Amino acid sequence: MTARDFSFRCLNVDASCSARRSVLQTHHGSVDLPAFMPVGTCGTVKGLTTQMVLATGAQMILGNTYHLALRPGAEIVADLGGLHGFSGWAGPILTDSGGFQIFSLAQNAKINEQAATFRSHIDGRLFELSPERAIEIQELLGSDIAMVLDHVVPLPAPAALVQEACQRTVRWAERCRKANRLATQAQFAIVQGGLDPDQRLACADQLVRLDFEGYAIGGLSVGESADERNRTLDVTCPALPADKPRYLMGVGTPSDILEAISRGVDLFDCVMPTRNGRNAMAFTDGGPVRLRNAAHQRDPRPLEEHCPCPACRHSRAYLRHLFQSGEMLGPILLTAHNLTYYQRLLAESRLAIAAGRFAAFAAEKLAGWARGGETPEDPA
Amino acid sequence: MTARDFSFRCLNVDASCSARRSVLQTHHGSVDLPAFMPVGTCGTVKGLTTQMVLATGAQMILGNTYHLALRPGAEIVADLGGLHGFSGWAGPILTDSGGFQIFSLAQNAKINEQAATFRSHIDGRLFELSPERAIEIQELLGSDIAMVLDHVVPLPAPAALVQEACQRTVRWAERCRKANRLATQAQFAIVQGGLDPDQRLACADQLVRLDFEGYAIGGLSVGESADERNRTLDVTCPALPADKPRYLMGVGTPSDILEAISRGVDLFDCVMPTRNGRNAMAFTDGGPVRLRNAAHQRDPRPLEEHCPCPACRHSRAYLRHLFQSGEMLGPILLTAHNLTYYQRLLAESRLAIAAGRFAAFAAEKLAGWARGGETPEDPA
Repeated sequence: MTARDFSFRCLNVDASCSARRSVLQTHHGSVDLPAFMPVGTCGTVKGLTTQMVLATGAQMILGNTYHLALRPGAEIVADLGGLHGFSGWAGPILTDSGGFQIFSLAQNAKINEQAATFRSHIDGRLFELSPERAIEIQELLGSDIAMVLDHVVPLPAPAALVQEACQRTVRWAERCRKANRLATQAQFAIVQGGLDPDQRLACADQLVRLDFEGYAIGGLSVGESADERNRTLDVTCPALPADKPRYLMGVGTPSDILEAISRGVDLFDCVMPTRNGRNAMAFTDGGPVRLRNAAHQRDPRPLEEHCPCPACRHSRAYLRHLFQSGEMLGPILLTAHNLTYYQRLLAESRLAIAAGRFAAFAAEKLAGWARGGETPEDPA
Repeated sequence: MTARDFSFRCLNVDASCSARRSVLQTHHGSVDLPAFMPVGTCGTVKGLTTQMVLATGAQMILGNTYHLALRPGAEIVADLGGLHGFSGWAGPILTDSGGFQIFSLAQNAKINEQAATFRSHIDGRLFELSPERAIEIQELLGSDIAMVLDHVVPLPAPAALVQEACQRTVRWAERCRKANRLATQAQFAIVQGGLDPDQRLACADQLVRLDFEGYAIGGLSVGESADERNRTLDVTCPALPADKPRYLMGVGTPSDILEAISRGVDLFDCVMPTRNGRNAMAFTDGGPVRLRNAAHQRDPRPLEEHCPCPACRHSRAYLRHLFQSGEMLGPILLTAHNLTYYQRLLAESRLAIAAGRFAAFAAEKLAGWARGGETPEDPA
């Protein structure tokens, strides 16, 4: 049942919380967990070459089934060597199933038991995505980890709708499991259930019985508060097998990630470091730095003294100048910095777990972020 | 009179034409000539980190006085370590004087004997640029080679206007020479004179007497034909000192560059490789490749088999996909490829000159470009 070359090994659980350190082995190499995956939506992490992505410390990236299926098309990617050959990324790749994009991006999305139908946000073409097709596309892409097609609903949502989406997600997960043909591709199921603990537990229980290689917690980062998300993790994580990886989809800020790690989550993806980087916002241990602010006009300091990224070879004044001048290098450098920052945060988290002091580490980080930083309201 | 650390040494002149191979020594290092300088208008070669620019093979880059004086301002750049410290480029830098941008970019430009006045194309602020201020700005920028402020006129132009601009250029060159304070900065004068051989010769003669470290041929690439440009070079190059570098400003296509090298030009800059790269046009030995063309949709080949640039690790199909998807990585990779292509062309030119076969080399290159390539009219 388990994909060839795939394994998960827990190295230790922190003494102070549920944080755990582990190693994920995939067909294209191993990943130290907890890990953050940069988002490579269209076969590229926006603004960076694969060499630059590697240099941030990333070991695994995420590709989007929805985007790649629409353009250039999964069959074209397959002809060009799959997503690894196409994009030039030689390491592990996880692909999502398209479920979230159908909910968030597609036009005229209609979902029935058989499949989702929707129009492309690019050119209005009609697409149908069934659980079987979602797996077929991901097998054409050749990712190391495929996600099942799930039914995502916006929050807050009526209980009946949450329950319906939850049950459909379970039925679709079963169809995805049966559709799997690629022996080197692992499948992760996605626990839905909104903010309802009973729904989450019921969904997790049913999915666990289907014996996937890993489990994701989906349907979050869709409008809920951090408290609501954390309570959902408190309920869901313990319901998932201890010997399989746990992936919190689409989350989040540095503090969101530390909160989730402390609850036993192993894997993350989010557009925040790349998207915010393109918009002149840098993550630092002293809190966010907004480089368009006039305060940086003559600042000779780098964003962070000890950061090895290419942005930190320059002054804040230079980085600000790039954004003020509309130069591409601004988004490029800040994307590299933010991804490097996230990878450093995850690497430090793994060290803290190894030392059994993750809770104290997280508290120190949160205090640093709270001390400094700039708000969007700072004069620009 | 000569700037500290500055020297020019001719290694050999080709047996078949006036092409010559030489070495330029500057305060920030040496440059093998003939050389092509990538254009770093606002303190960045658009789309590339300094590491990526270095990897293309570039040894010297160009910075724009006009752009940097307007934003962020020469004094700010000086406070941040000059253009070298500001941009992170550790090698030689040549700065232009702003003369060409006043002619091509500024609003409401007015030129009298004292100075040019104009409004910023960014925010309409009023600026005055005298020969003395042009040198002061370039000394604040700390470039290795400064250009004198010249008076550029569009072609075709009435003879009287060409003559007036030409004579003003000589008088301003003399003022620039006197304004020089920075011992490590060389100054190049700019020969004007439009397409009039007598004006070119008179201008060159007067400038040579002022004993600059090098000479540029300006006022070209402003609407003239290749034949007109080549005839102007045929007249002007022999009038310039054999023991000083010759720089053809703002030129040009690969074939323009080979034509000029064969006439004794040593140094070039042009936005073409970077600008065309951002617009999905790649230079190759088989002629230009337009990556938006549908022909490349499934093409697994790289742009060039033996090119070491990061773009050529990918298929043409992938590069096309990046442009079709509006991904930043498309412009980034094609900029790197085109600059690498230009640097390879110049490196091959130097080898051909060393072997005394530049004319044959140029003919082979021209034949290759003529054989293949795509026109903008190809179906996209």
